[in-house]
Amino acid sequence: MEQQMKQIEGGVTAAKGFEAAGTEAGIKYQNRKDMALVYSTAPCKAAGTFTTNVVKAAPVLWDKDIVENSPFVQAVVVNAGIANACTGKQGMDYCREEAITAATLLNIPENAVLIGSTGVIGMQLPIDRIREGIRKLAAAKAGTPEAGTLAAEAIMTTDTRKKEIAVRFTTQDGKEVTVGGMCKGSGMIHPNMCTMLSYVTTDAAISRTLLQEALGTSIIDSYNMISVDGDTSTNDTCLVLANGLAGNAEIVQKDADYDRFYEALHFVNTYLAKQMAGDGEGATALFAATVYNAASKQDARILARSVISSNLSKAAIYGHDANFGRFLCALGYSGVQFDPEKIELFFESGAGKMQVYKDGAAVDYSEEEATRILSESEVTVLVDMKAGTESATAWGCDLTYEYVKINADYRS
Amino acid sequence: MEQQMKQIEGGVTAAKGFEAAGTEAGIKYQNRKDMALVYSTAPCKAAGTFTTNVVKAAPVLWDKDIVENSPFVQAVVVNAGIANACTGKQGMDYCREEAITAATLLNIPENAVLIGSTGVIGMQLPIDRIREGIRKLAAAKAGTPEAGTLAAEAIMTTDTRKKEIAVRFTTQDGKEVTVGGMCKGSGMIHPNMCTMLSYVTTDAAISRTLLQEALGTSIIDSYNMISVDGDTSTNDTCLVLANGLAGNAEIVQKDADYDRFYEALHFVNTYLAKQMAGDGEGATALFAATVYNAASKQDARILARSVISSNLSKAAIYGHDANFGRFLCALGYSGVQFDPEKIELFFESGAGKMQVYKDGAAVDYSEEEATRILSESEVTVLVDMKAGTESATAWGCDLTYEYVKINADYRS
Repeated sequence: MEQQMKQIEGGVTAAKGFEAAGTEAGIKYQNRKDMALVYSTAPCKAAGTFTTNVVKAAPVLWDKDIVENSPFVQAVVVNAGIANACTGKQGMDYCREEAITAATLLNIPENAVLIGSTGVIGMQLPIDRIREGIRKLAAAKAGTPEAGTLAAEAIMTTDTRKKEIAVRFTTQDGKEVTVGGMCKGSGMIHPNMCTMLSYVTTDAAISRTLLQEALGTSIIDSYNMISVDGDTSTNDTCLVLANGLAGNAEIVQKDADYDRFYEALHFVNTYLAKQMAGDGEGATALFAATVYNAASKQDARILARSVISSNLSKAAIYGHDANFGRFLCALGYSGVQFDPEKIELFFESGAGKMQVYKDGAAVDYSEEEATRILSESEVTVLVDMKAGTESATAWGCDLTYEYVKINADYRS
Repeated sequence: MEQQMKQIEGGVTAAKGFEAAGTEAGIKYQNRKDMALVYSTAPCKAAGTFTTNVVKAAPVLWDKDIVENSPFVQAVVVNAGIANACTGKQGMDYCREEAITAATLLNIPENAVLIGSTGVIGMQLPIDRIREGIRKLAAAKAGTPEAGTLAAEAIMTTDTRKKEIAVRFTTQDGKEVTVGGMCKGSGMIHPNMCTMLSYVTTDAAISRTLLQEALGTSIIDSYNMISVDGDTSTNDTCLVLANGLAGNAEIVQKDADYDRFYEALHFVNTYLAKQMAGDGEGATALFAATVYNAASKQDARILARSVISSNLSKAAIYGHDANFGRFLCALGYSGVQFDPEKIELFFESGAGKMQVYKDGAAVDYSEEEATRILSESEVTVLVDMKAGTESATAWGCDLTYEYVKINADYRS
């Protein structure tokens, strides 16, 4: 199916009726954009998934309530620099103030405004600057690809590059439907809604129930299969807004149109997730693990995630070191039972593919060849479990000096 | 009770009848000792706990069998440099060859010889050099403190210092009982029998059942409460050998003597565990987390381990950064349910103690004061859960450039 997916220019503004903006509000960073707005000219159905962390940031609590209880949403306001997490009642009051400010300026209800924050935990927002930022965003919003890019840039924290994508497909009744998205995420990234903010917009007409179901299913093999550092954030949020402006017959059952929509949504989510993994803090390489012939899908996911989450495996990738025992070790402590004598291990990248482990021991491979394969910017460890037919892929990145540097100095 | 514990000089040779040796066998390292022997002049009861990793090194499989099925043990042969893990049938054959060699030279049965290996996974042992090493060890063994130290040095890999300790107590019938130990462990350290080799010797007379029970209980709050990098090794092994030469009435029930023995064993295990955490690869500080007033003991353990296992928390400790949100975040994703508004957070070290979080938000604390406290070589994060009466402490270390360097270059 994937070859039918048409990737197009743009991100959150690619779908009909969506506008965006990014601006400098001086929240914490200097001389860079740090606030973004996504706005829909028409009311949207919304779906969301949020961090599983017991410690939930104020905007996460705010958004959960809106997604579950509001009749519709129409805007998302995001700031970078301060996470508004561990901020008590004051933090919740600031969320409400943000929503009221945006609602007033955009002439929409207060409970149609979603809020996102990312950055340092434990600090209060400078609410005056936030309000001034929202004013600028409301004045600047536009439906152009450039406006979408400004928003994608404004939500970055330690990200080194913006992350956006858009795809288009045609429904059975001949309507063009667009799904676009942007996200940020680099540190505090780990399965179970990784530390990330991800915003997906679509002009598809789809029931709220199916929108939430599609999102809930898609995150399992996209965002929840990446890890940068094993830390599940307080602020993880993924939202999908659907305004129906494509004019297609509303998707209300799991028919061919639902399948196409799901495919488009999952393509966008997987792309954004991989972008986050590859742009992990300090990363020099995207480090993927594909586990196949596993006894169950869940086993495959757990094994793949265990490999890309292992600090020792990540450090080996950074060192271009074919230290395959570390990958085996990570498989072994994943919690999945298997026979180490039966499985096989391979390395693969743009520079080739080679087997390194079989029948319980190393195969006779060339270290130089292995180093050459592991020196690429995208490296995959392949594991044949020989236990069934299920497979899964997880994405992470290497562990570098730079990761430590970024996180030892993050607040200063 | 702990004040009654008398720490004495020495390690594995402190208890009556135990001898040791360390020698250069050229397994992988050059110009350093890399093989050790622990030997008892009298047959020992043995207890052991081993890695929970599905991928178990050959010596782990060997030792499990010996501990469970041999009538007694009398020697342990250990090598550093190569782990003899992921080595298939050849690896098991080499274990047997090691045991036969040692048994022949020491005039004890083959199934009285325990084997330990640590180092690179996936390489075969140079068995000729191993055999030659065992010959040298058997010739050099002695019951002196110096011999114990040589053994403790020989089992190091990336450790920066040897780890040994001995304590002595008196039984109700007036006999002096000694418990001594040595261990190695620096990388691949994580709860569930951390990557480590730990060997404890005692002259106590104690039933095999109670010896295993004492060990099994003690590891829960000692070795299993430390983490360096979240990677549970293929080789984790903790062995206790008891030869009964102290002459005390054999401990066969949980009486006052059992309690004293347990206390001594746990003191030794806790000391060795903390030594490993503080000497974590690249570490500049011992990073402890004490969780108290938790609803259950298990909650307290999980919460404490989550804090010291978090890469972001560890990097903050390295940066002497009072970024308390990261500790809260790690508590939040631990899996334990709690109310973030209720708990309180403190930092403590030799330089003082201060509160940083209360009532769901930061307290008004001095950043300079916090940095001063966090700049010590031993730093503790204290968490008051206000949910019950149980507490636990976990030990880890900071995450540094040096950790990455060691692990990106480990094999080269």
